[in-house]
Amino acid sequence: MNSIGKFFRVTTFGESHGFCIGVVIDGCPAGLKIDANKIQNELNRRKPGQSSISTNRDESDKLQILSGVFNEHTTNAPICMIIPNNSTDSGYYEKNWMNPRPSHADFTAYNKYGGQNDYRGGGIFSGRITASFVMAGAVAKQLLSETLGITIIGFTSSIGGISVPPLSYSEIIRNTELNKVRCPDNDTALKMIQAIETVRNEGDSIGGTVDCIALNIPVGLGDPIFDTLEGELSKALFAIPAVKAVEFGAGKKFSEMKGSEANDPFMILEGKVITKTNNAGGILGGISTGMPLVLKTTFKPTPSISKPQNTVNLQKLEETVITIHGRHDPCIVPRAVPVVESVVAIVLADHALRAGYISPVLEEKA
Amino acid sequence: MNSIGKFFRVTTFGESHGFCIGVVIDGCPAGLKIDANKIQNELNRRKPGQSSISTNRDESDKLQILSGVFNEHTTNAPICMIIPNNSTDSGYYEKNWMNPRPSHADFTAYNKYGGQNDYRGGGIFSGRITASFVMAGAVAKQLLSETLGITIIGFTSSIGGISVPPLSYSEIIRNTELNKVRCPDNDTALKMIQAIETVRNEGDSIGGTVDCIALNIPVGLGDPIFDTLEGELSKALFAIPAVKAVEFGAGKKFSEMKGSEANDPFMILEGKVITKTNNAGGILGGISTGMPLVLKTTFKPTPSISKPQNTVNLQKLEETVITIHGRHDPCIVPRAVPVVESVVAIVLADHALRAGYISPVLEEKA
Amino acid sequence: MNSIGKFFRVTTFGESHGFCIGVVIDGCPAGLKIDANKIQNELNRRKPGQSSISTNRDESDKLQILSGVFNEHTTNAPICMIIPNNSTDSGYYEKNWMNPRPSHADFTAYNKYGGQNDYRGGGIFSGRITASFVMAGAVAKQLLSETLGITIIGFTSSIGGISVPPLSYSEIIRNTELNKVRCPDNDTALKMIQAIETVRNEGDSIGGTVDCIALNIPVGLGDPIFDTLEGELSKALFAIPAVKAVEFGAGKKFSEMKGSEANDPFMILEGKVITKTNNAGGILGGISTGMPLVLKTTFKPTPSISKPQNTVNLQKLEETVITIHGRHDPCIVPRAVPVVESVVAIVLADHALRAGYISPVLEEKA
Amino acid sequence: MNSIGKFFRVTTFGESHGFCIGVVIDGCPAGLKIDANKIQNELNRRKPGQSSISTNRDESDKLQILSGVFNEHTTNAPICMIIPNNSTDSGYYEKNWMNPRPSHADFTAYNKYGGQNDYRGGGIFSGRITASFVMAGAVAKQLLSETLGITIIGFTSSIGGISVPPLSYSEIIRNTELNKVRCPDNDTALKMIQAIETVRNEGDSIGGTVDCIALNIPVGLGDPIFDTLEGELSKALFAIPAVKAVEFGAGKKFSEMKGSEANDPFMILEGKVITKTNNAGGILGGISTGMPLVLKTTFKPTPSISKPQNTVNLQKLEETVITIHGRHDPCIVPRAVPVVESVVAIVLADHALRAGYISPVLEEKA
Repeated sequence: MNSIGKFFRVTTFGESHGFCIGVVIDGCPAGLKIDANKIQNELNRRKPGQSSISTNRDESDKLQILSGVFNEHTTNAPICMIIPNNSTDSGYYEKNWMNPRPSHADFTAYNKYGGQNDYRGGGIFSGRITASFVMAGAVAKQLLSETLGITIIGFTSSIGGISVPPLSYSEIIRNTELNKVRCPDNDTALKMIQAIETVRNEGDSIGGTVDCIALNIPVGLGDPIFDTLEGELSKALFAIPAVKAVEFGAGKKFSEMKGSEANDPFMILEGKVITKTNNAGGILGGISTGMPLVLKTTFKPTPSISKPQNTVNLQKLEETVITIHGRHDPCIVPRAVPVVESVVAIVLADHALRAGYISPVLEEKA
Repeated sequence: MNSIGKFFRVTTFGESHGFCIGVVIDGCPAGLKIDANKIQNELNRRKPGQSSISTNRDESDKLQILSGVFNEHTTNAPICMIIPNNSTDSGYYEKNWMNPRPSHADFTAYNKYGGQNDYRGGGIFSGRITASFVMAGAVAKQLLSETLGITIIGFTSSIGGISVPPLSYSEIIRNTELNKVRCPDNDTALKMIQAIETVRNEGDSIGGTVDCIALNIPVGLGDPIFDTLEGELSKALFAIPAVKAVEFGAGKKFSEMKGSEANDPFMILEGKVITKTNNAGGILGGISTGMPLVLKTTFKPTPSISKPQNTVNLQKLEETVITIHGRHDPCIVPRAVPVVESVVAIVLADHALRAGYISPVLEEKA
Repeated sequence: MNSIGKFFRVTTFGESHGFCIGVVIDGCPAGLKIDANKIQNELNRRKPGQSSISTNRDESDKLQILSGVFNEHTTNAPICMIIPNNSTDSGYYEKNWMNPRPSHADFTAYNKYGGQNDYRGGGIFSGRITASFVMAGAVAKQLLSETLGITIIGFTSSIGGISVPPLSYSEIIRNTELNKVRCPDNDTALKMIQAIETVRNEGDSIGGTVDCIALNIPVGLGDPIFDTLEGELSKALFAIPAVKAVEFGAGKKFSEMKGSEANDPFMILEGKVITKTNNAGGILGGISTGMPLVLKTTFKPTPSISKPQNTVNLQKLEETVITIHGRHDPCIVPRAVPVVESVVAIVLADHALRAGYISPVLEEKA
Repeated sequence: MNSIGKFFRVTTFGESHGFCIGVVIDGCPAGLKIDANKIQNELNRRKPGQSSISTNRDESDKLQILSGVFNEHTTNAPICMIIPNNSTDSGYYEKNWMNPRPSHADFTAYNKYGGQNDYRGGGIFSGRITASFVMAGAVAKQLLSETLGITIIGFTSSIGGISVPPLSYSEIIRNTELNKVRCPDNDTALKMIQAIETVRNEGDSIGGTVDCIALNIPVGLGDPIFDTLEGELSKALFAIPAVKAVEFGAGKKFSEMKGSEANDPFMILEGKVITKTNNAGGILGGISTGMPLVLKTTFKPTPSISKPQNTVNLQKLEETVITIHGRHDPCIVPRAVPVVESVVAIVLADHALRAGYISPVLEEKA
């Protein structure tokens, strides 16, 4: 359903062309100072119209906190946040909702809900729903940062096969936000931007990958057998529309490796047990090792392209052709970076609470 | 924790060197005829010692059904099944449990449980726990097959970079079980076997990938936003030790594709809406499209290798070297095939029940 | 936490003196026509200031639907509803929050949340939170009525020991809303009103009981072992502040009965199996029998009384005396009637969905 | 379904006349020393044939621990425990399963499961399933006692209207196990025994109440809004077959009280905030106050009586008469005492873990 998490529990609501997009966080510890500007900043990183390469739809995405914050601090009561919608033109959808857009959720939603779903702008299947992840993720980031010093860094690692070269964590942290594709290597960024502009001019779109790293993770997050850190993260990441693959550490490369190459030997550094390499991506047996968490998500190209496409009319059961109008991102990857970070933050906050690394009351009040 | 599923709920218990490996299924509809031989057959597909390329440990893995089956039919009451353990020699572990094996769960388990975990044979982190998935999966397969005609087919798609060529579903169904690596192309299988034998002789191990296809899936399985079919499947798949990446449909290839290549156009075939291609792997918006479900899992090489490896002694906090003895699979992939199928079956059964495609009582009794 | 239900899942948010009281319903089937007036009417039945015997606080309790309803029908997407707060004067609480009101949640909330809870008007522990139950319950009632013809009837069965005599279901349905205490027997109602006026004049309050009946329940709602209908209903009913006892059918009287008196013999009426008596209150083995569901809840007297009371100052750890000012109900029971009905409706809707008696799509759209 | 709890999660399996009754505990902290004798002792307190006033069925109820205990300590892995069944004679049930016993679950189970349920001895609806609660509860008691010093005391408070007079906690602790009805007042016990013998001779049965007290509860167990301590306890208590009412503190008496009588004033004793009275039964706002937890459960008379009773034949849809043979308790109350205690222990253990009062690892191993 529309909830995730056991202790830091996130419930989303709202539709693309409805009144608002919203989220309820249940279980956030009491006593966390909430900086609404930081939440708004994260929303701004995700919102459309940030640059020449994204859609120019105007969505102000103005945060409203409806509950759960008292004297600028959390109370452990549910935190409800919304961003009202505006600038919605549902004309295209009213005319075309019987003609499902290829590789969108139109067809499955129509079937699952007997045509009762809100099809305007994709309804709850719109990428706009990820604004709710960002609001919740921004709170989770503040929680993780305040209590455990955890930093979560996402970046565009490839677009259309153009990949970032290996970089240090500090380079990634320093450079990611310096260009409009959120690629921490500037030369690669320029090539990516060119690739995006090319497909945009063709009326096409392009896929890519977002990597995410989390630093200062304590040993011991994640539960066997089913609630592994990989399992819980991947489940949450697949909630992001367009994600079609999730990898941890060496990920798919493991399939070509030998054990002697893949295994991460243990060693001692400054009295602490670490691993020499981190092919595991910071997770063994589903549980965090204390090494950086490293994961990669693959995004399919935005299915909304302006080229004519074959589809069917569901009412007449006839084949037909559609041309999607509207202002769509030729590449969703750069805007997806804060969304991936947010989802990772939500899962880590939940597991840090489960494992007792964050207590339900952060700070006693006088 | 050790449970998964909402309606078809699977709870595992047991340790590698304890009394047994067991599973409880809660929520299986009443009136399903249970063929215990089919469950035993699936256990046999997973069990060690099947062929020259797997471990020669002798584990008889004899099924016992403790509850939930009455007159050879399910009753909707919890089904508890166990396989008693035998042939366990814990000597290595008693001597070495303070020296975590690289890329095993030894280190994280020790830290998470304050050294209280059952370390013998890896305890609950052993690959042996997957026998519980197979028992539950065998019931799920019978349920899906009986009610919806769903077929689930896993196969070895690559080992150490040696990949199977594209094959039709019928070739895959026909050929997969004909060789000991469960690769549906015989020439590729021979190369894979050779690769495994090479690493075995080197005291090393090797990774690979298992693909899984499910046919006859109805439209509409999976729930937005968080309980997507991709998300729920991936969470369950990461419960299999050694899985480090999960992809759906074109998976990672999406990152290099354009929308015009990636999109699956809708068309009509025999009065039914299908897609011309199936890059989506049978899932759009987290919901099944009715096309075959297609997914790929990457397995890291077995971390148990007989080459000497660097590690640390956790008690003395000193670096040390270990050599792992014991009978280990040089490549876990072939034995993982029924495990992947089982996990997929469990998740599909759960979602078919949630969506109302399978009713809680299959058949009224006189 | 702040959610209940598995398929019809209700999450509450908001505080007594915060911006609003709100609720999210997840899992409501698609295609239910939503009559917002009916929801508003239920809110009006609960809201304060209805009559001379309840508080004269002015809370307009005006419904806003933020999501999940499209073309006046549900879509299966989460339904978020709020009522904005107004008329809040937090002066008393700002001055006295260190002096917990006896038999309120002030003391436990202060301790559990380290003083970080929103204490104004009781925060989330206020009876005002039950407006969220009423919003969700009103949707559940429409769902149960539309699909299964279920009717849910609550009434005041006793106040301060003044009890309603046995009445037929039709008398209860006809008469309950005719007086301001919601007692279906008018003579008893007059005595109850007098009792309430007496305690109000004394600056005191008084307890009572609310009975609830649900008609047209199908056989088979409720699950063994733990998700029994009694268990699930009671858990939900204890979410209503001030409820301290829950009974089903003959309830507490069973403790004085013999089996031969208590057992409900089966018989056949118009081809249908029914029981001659209904001491079971419509539930056997945790599962509905098809007979009317009958339950009773006991409400403690409102703890807010204007008499001076002994308490302690939590900061100084000194004993002190408080006098609670403010506009409080001398008897909460009459206003609790729609709340009890709502909670029962929520649980029944959830179980009707679990058991497959209500399908996830009520009606296909053209 | 057959599970309860969020952190200390209990799943039951097994049938009355099947192979065994079993339970899986998931989430028990690592490092708890398990005394199997104490578990066996609790099973012995529940088992039939303890005295002249209970059934003389011989059920040895011999504990077997299948998993989760290593070197006599818990490991946090799931603990599976079973008691094999013996002494089962299913003859009566094979002959009569189409004739539901009045006020048993036969009728509802038959309908819910389409006649596929295991009807022998009541299947999973048998009181015998409570042995699984006792096994899990015995572990929970050891956990609560070791970590928080919590003591849980149940006793028979009334049988057939014969009630125990008010007693101090120390009298209750001292005297409850001294007689075969588990009534802490010996004179009352004698009257109760006589009442039971009378109904037994009549072929009848009788109801009663079990009270339960828990001492040394910390402040802060229980969560708003829905996971209140009352709500969670009552849900679990209604899992015990025959429980039809649950009350906390003054319980039903609140309905006749004024606020000035019912409210528990706060005071300071030895530097600690307590309440002068404890009408609240140790819970305010759904959260424990630190005062003793006090609750009362009402048990209906055993529905199995040997007097002829009216019922129907479900196959023929004809009215008929049955006479239940077999060895049944004329009063289940004395044997229910350890069951009530166990259920309370399970819920308290779960909430103590949720609130962080018990940590996931009790003690580090060398």
